[in-house]
Amino acid sequence: MLKMEGSVQIFPLRDMPRVKPGDKLPNLILESVSRSGVSLQDSDIVVVTQKVVSKAEGRLVDLDTVRPGPKALRLATKLGKDPRTVQMILRESKRIVRQGHGVLIVETRQGFVCANAGIDQSNVEEGYLSLLPVDADISARKLRKALEKLTGRKLAVVITDTFGRPWRDGHVDVAIGASGITPLEDLVGTTDPYGHKLRVTQPALVDEIAGASELVMRKHSLTPASVVRGVAYRRGYRGVRSIVRERRADLFR
Amino acid sequence: MLKMEGSVQIFPLRDMPRVKPGDKLPNLILESVSRSGVSLQDSDIVVVTQKVVSKAEGRLVDLDTVRPGPKALRLATKLGKDPRTVQMILRESKRIVRQGHGVLIVETRQGFVCANAGIDQSNVEEGYLSLLPVDADISARKLRKALEKLTGRKLAVVITDTFGRPWRDGHVDVAIGASGITPLEDLVGTTDPYGHKLRVTQPALVDEIAGASELVMRKHSLTPASVVRGVAYRRGYRGVRSIVRERRADLFR
Repeated sequence: MLKMEGSVQIFPLRDMPRVKPGDKLPNLILESVSRSGVSLQDSDIVVVTQKVVSKAEGRLVDLDTVRPGPKALRLATKLGKDPRTVQMILRESKRIVRQGHGVLIVETRQGFVCANAGIDQSNVEEGYLSLLPVDADISARKLRKALEKLTGRKLAVVITDTFGRPWRDGHVDVAIGASGITPLEDLVGTTDPYGHKLRVTQPALVDEIAGASELVMRKHSLTPASVVRGVAYRRGYRGVRSIVRERRADLFR
Repeated sequence: MLKMEGSVQIFPLRDMPRVKPGDKLPNLILESVSRSGVSLQDSDIVVVTQKVVSKAEGRLVDLDTVRPGPKALRLATKLGKDPRTVQMILRESKRIVRQGHGVLIVETRQGFVCANAGIDQSNVEEGYLSLLPVDADISARKLRKALEKLTGRKLAVVITDTFGRPWRDGHVDVAIGASGITPLEDLVGTTDPYGHKLRVTQPALVDEIAGASELVMRKHSLTPASVVRGVAYRRGYRGVRSIVRERRADLFR
């Protein structure tokens, strides 16, 4: 099939080895890129799930080392959760936004509103929890710089996690860190074909890229990364932090 | 470029004519498909924005014919909106979920929680509002059946709209109607490579497809449709209505 003008392609990066703390993630990704038969081009977006970034950065916690405090014990009983997990959720959060249905919706230290502070046990060794990167924008920047150095290409990096959402069942992958790409495309002030000024439309490119990437990266397979090619985006370095809504502008916090 | 195993492609359908009430949308789409150099294959997903579906279905309202009632007048003053627009928002809604910052977040008659009941003036003739389809799942089913009949292919159809979201700035395209595709991929009970049962992961494929499609369909261009190829999905007919969360299970309503 020929590359069609304006089309977007998403390539899964297959057969990534299991990542361990201290592993060189940029090298593992590039090995997977070449195994997958892709060669990186300028403007390609490398999308990586939070889990492998957290593992490489050692953001794993041995459950046996966690001592739950009184608040964690109380919430754990109420929600039917492991008190040690609740203790870690509280430690990673600024505040609880909602609780109920066996879940804690919190605002993480980075400002993300999500269930359980992004902490879970899937795809990690038994008895461990994985935490979100301390600052996924910084993780994305380091990864982008390393990949650019190794390949000589201008790239963008998006780090994703799987979030639930209000009002709809199911989960979507969203961006928690980004570098090399401006997160929002700002169309405010541009004109539609009927001559109306577009007043409010700001496509959240990084989140649409994260969700698109999930279409090739399935949770039960060893495919924690992908390459997205063909998206028209502006280069930028403000990161996902720049699209976290301020609390006073938010109708749901 | 060769089609890579497991990759996903998204093709924009260009140069769609301006759609008018009564136009045959399936034919317009297929003409655009052939102009765009794509030929539809089994399992392709045809993604169409709400706006052209609403236009073809005549879901347009002449603002001059709208008589705002007292509630609309009061809310319009409070929010700084056109009272006629507010009147239409109220008519299309079951209830108001939040109000403020110049916006009404409502639950539509179909059950979607979104700003202004999906009503806007972009990409329509001056003096008109476009409303969401009465039931976008039914619109998707009709469109899928017509496209399948005309092409002899097994297809899926997703109808999208652009929604804001809590906690993050910017907008993403989400599915408001679907046919031929099961909206959620249910991974509950499958096992990750470490042997853990995946307990909660249900990727909302239709929403990830909607967002992915937005990456090639830009608001200021005449590209209201795309073809998404390569997504592994299960055929199904339950529609987007099946992923609208019940009110009592929702922590944010």
